Amino acid sequence: MQALPGFRDFLPDDCARRNYVFARWREVARRYGFVEWEGPPLEATELYKKKSGAEIVEQLFNFTDKGEREVALRPELTPTLARVVAAHEREFKKPIKWFSIGQFFRHEKQQRGRLREFYQLNADIIGEQTSPSEGDAEVIALSIDVMRSFGFKENDFAVRVSSRDFWVLNFLKPRFRGVVPYVETQTAFFQILDKLEREPDERADQQLKHFNTSRAEVHEFIQETNAKFASGDIDFHDKDISLGHLYRLFRSLEARGLSRFAELDLTVVRGLAYYNSIIFELYSRSKSERAIAGGGRYDFLIHTLFGVNLTALGFAMGDVVLGNLIDDTPHAKAKRDAWLSRDRNIDLYIVIAKEERRADALTQIQQLRERGYRVDYPLTPTKVARQFQAAEDAGASLALLYGDEWPQVKVKNLPTREESLIDHGALLDSVAKFFNAGSSA
Amino acid sequence: MQALPGFRDFLPDDCARRNYVFARWREVARRYGFVEWEGPPLEATELYKKKSGAEIVEQLFNFTDKGEREVALRPELTPTLARVVAAHEREFKKPIKWFSIGQFFRHEKQQRGRLREFYQLNADIIGEQTSPSEGDAEVIALSIDVMRSFGFKENDFAVRVSSRDFWVLNFLKPRFRGVVPYVETQTAFFQILDKLEREPDERADQQLKHFNTSRAEVHEFIQETNAKFASGDIDFHDKDISLGHLYRLFRSLEARGLSRFAELDLTVVRGLAYYNSIIFELYSRSKSERAIAGGGRYDFLIHTLFGVNLTALGFAMGDVVLGNLIDDTPHAKAKRDAWLSRDRNIDLYIVIAKEERRADALTQIQQLRERGYRVDYPLTPTKVARQFQAAEDAGASLALLYGDEWPQVKVKNLPTREESLIDHGALLDSVAKFFNAGSSA
Repeated sequence: MQALPGFRDFLPDDCARRNYVFARWREVARRYGFVEWEGPPLEATELYKKKSGAEIVEQLFNFTDKGEREVALRPELTPTLARVVAAHEREFKKPIKWFSIGQFFRHEKQQRGRLREFYQLNADIIGEQTSPSEGDAEVIALSIDVMRSFGFKENDFAVRVSSRDFWVLNFLKPRFRGVVPYVETQTAFFQILDKLEREPDERADQQLKHFNTSRAEVHEFIQETNAKFASGDIDFHDKDISLGHLYRLFRSLEARGLSRFAELDLTVVRGLAYYNSIIFELYSRSKSERAIAGGGRYDFLIHTLFGVNLTALGFAMGDVVLGNLIDDTPHAKAKRDAWLSRDRNIDLYIVIAKEERRADALTQIQQLRERGYRVDYPLTPTKVARQFQAAEDAGASLALLYGDEWPQVKVKNLPTREESLIDHGALLDSVAKFFNAGSSA
Repeated sequence: MQALPGFRDFLPDDCARRNYVFARWREVARRYGFVEWEGPPLEATELYKKKSGAEIVEQLFNFTDKGEREVALRPELTPTLARVVAAHEREFKKPIKWFSIGQFFRHEKQQRGRLREFYQLNADIIGEQTSPSEGDAEVIALSIDVMRSFGFKENDFAVRVSSRDFWVLNFLKPRFRGVVPYVETQTAFFQILDKLEREPDERADQQLKHFNTSRAEVHEFIQETNAKFASGDIDFHDKDISLGHLYRLFRSLEARGLSRFAELDLTVVRGLAYYNSIIFELYSRSKSERAIAGGGRYDFLIHTLFGVNLTALGFAMGDVVLGNLIDDTPHAKAKRDAWLSRDRNIDLYIVIAKEERRADALTQIQQLRERGYRVDYPLTPTKVARQFQAAEDAGASLALLYGDEWPQVKVKNLPTREESLIDHGALLDSVAKFFNAGSSA
């Protein structure tokens, strides 16, 4: 009687929490002028192999379908995005600003913050034609404002921003002569960098020895760069060009009043190999969780996969780590719970005290629903006390009682317990006045 | 560069049309006091075999996962619903009124109105404890009001209502002595009934001969029953009990003012074997399409699958046939298109005429977005005329131009072409006045 391991049943409370997250994601992405799209949850396995290499298959729910196609449940959206924008490239003016909310699947070991299915917000900008920085600032600002829409504050989270091409350019310098020129050694170096804060010193030093450098030396380089970045002493057109991009990105965040949410952290490298420039991760300040969101620029991926030249950048935010963080952050939880209790409530409950009045009640119920009110009532003959209990449970504001008072109806304001008798013909007006709302439907 | 056969990419316009359908489904289900839930898209294959028999596997996207589990993409929601309510039975007061909007998968031959993935609204009432009819009327009324919310009128569609137990009770009578008493022969009879209108006469007669009856005789019986039903000459407590249920169901629809959308049609039998009482299908009056929705009562299924006694009834409506019908029905299409154009538009476009003003523009953009406005702007230096074109394309109501007029900003009402100069400090108030809206965020 259970779902598969790592899969969730969304009972009404869970589903409402999910919908709360979706509503914020959608609302903020649209404020930023992003337009919603969606891809299919099943794709050719080849699409993922082409992007991430054959090892990716270990993490996939993949199989051969009845038409002998190798297919997989999508583990991420980016390959589908690349496929779709490459196919429809000429139909859309650039830059394309698209977002999507969908479910993804990875056959991973279960642990806190990791299930086998999860939802993600993906937001991407495709085909922004010239200088980087502004687009990067736009998606980072979006990720920040999404977090703020959940009630998170600057003490709760931070965006750590880094740059892949900053490192690659510096690999050319004497200090990192051991890293140049092979992509493989660059990737190996990034892996060390990624773990620099987590691994014991000696181990990192041992690994860095292969690159003729050390933990101390890398740290020193990062400190120097941070100082240069803070002072703004940057040569925008030459050797510091990637640092210049980072600098302009932070100026854009500053103009937006959002720079307090972001910090330069050159140890951030992101696991996926296809990023080529600015990258970022969004973390809880308490560090108790995995990254809440991550993204960056992948200007060459669409060309690599489909031969179409389109710059690209974006980020993804999952629902699982985010949901845990909302649960653990009192002000975010309070904001969500207030929304949930408003969302859950119906408007009116119709109490049928005499079965002879059921048809009259149904006529009224229909008219109320047609005006857009949320209305419930007992499907079968039920004791009046139980009906009022059902009204309370459903969070109804008003109960209308159909009984001996007919052709008058008893109207009870459930929060205040006030009661009045209204002629049934005047009920709709009276209800409209109460909810201070016109008609809908 | 294509999606798998039978799978859809939802480009922005497609996604907006999908979201329009979802929004109506959700809104109307909630008006009826239904609460949203959702199950996982992947389940144990056994769940579907147990419900529908081993043949169902032919229609499934099923496979063995990396944990050696036999799993399948869900072809329908009912087995998951049965699993979830059986597992959580004690946590919810009855009747449970739940709805769900999700994606489903069937490995079928593609044809108009049939893809390999589709979305469905499912709405079910579980554990309504006593007499049928009212719950049935509630879900049928919901299906009607969902259709009306798309702008469909009584000339566009009808609900055909029938009853499984009406037939089963009549199989006991001399006229249908050939059908009694085996479930297998009943099922065979239902299959003939289902095709009665579609098959050539001789073939139906040949098949009905096995049951010692004929097409003419079955028709006569249906006509007699229709006449009895119309006159209301029904013995509610004895041999006509199932006709009595149908009769009360129609009285409930009548009280709601919805009976013009429904008709008794005893040739409707529904393909799935688990229905036990009232069943219904929602059709386009033009008959050009497959059923738009279908449902009924399946009081024994949850017990059969999970040993828990819970009555149940509900319906499902798919998005594909519905979408085709909206496309083909001018007033429904006009209603959708009006919604789409409102939904698509952004509120403001910020024109950056001088790059020196970009930071000032970004500050304003952020403040506008924080107040809930949808705002877009050029990420890179762009000719002013192209920016205004982008503003028009995005359906912006206002353009704010940052240029030589600074610290004043040129405000252009795009529909009317009116322009004015506003001091940048007064912009937010001015914009708020224009949109006649308070703050959000």
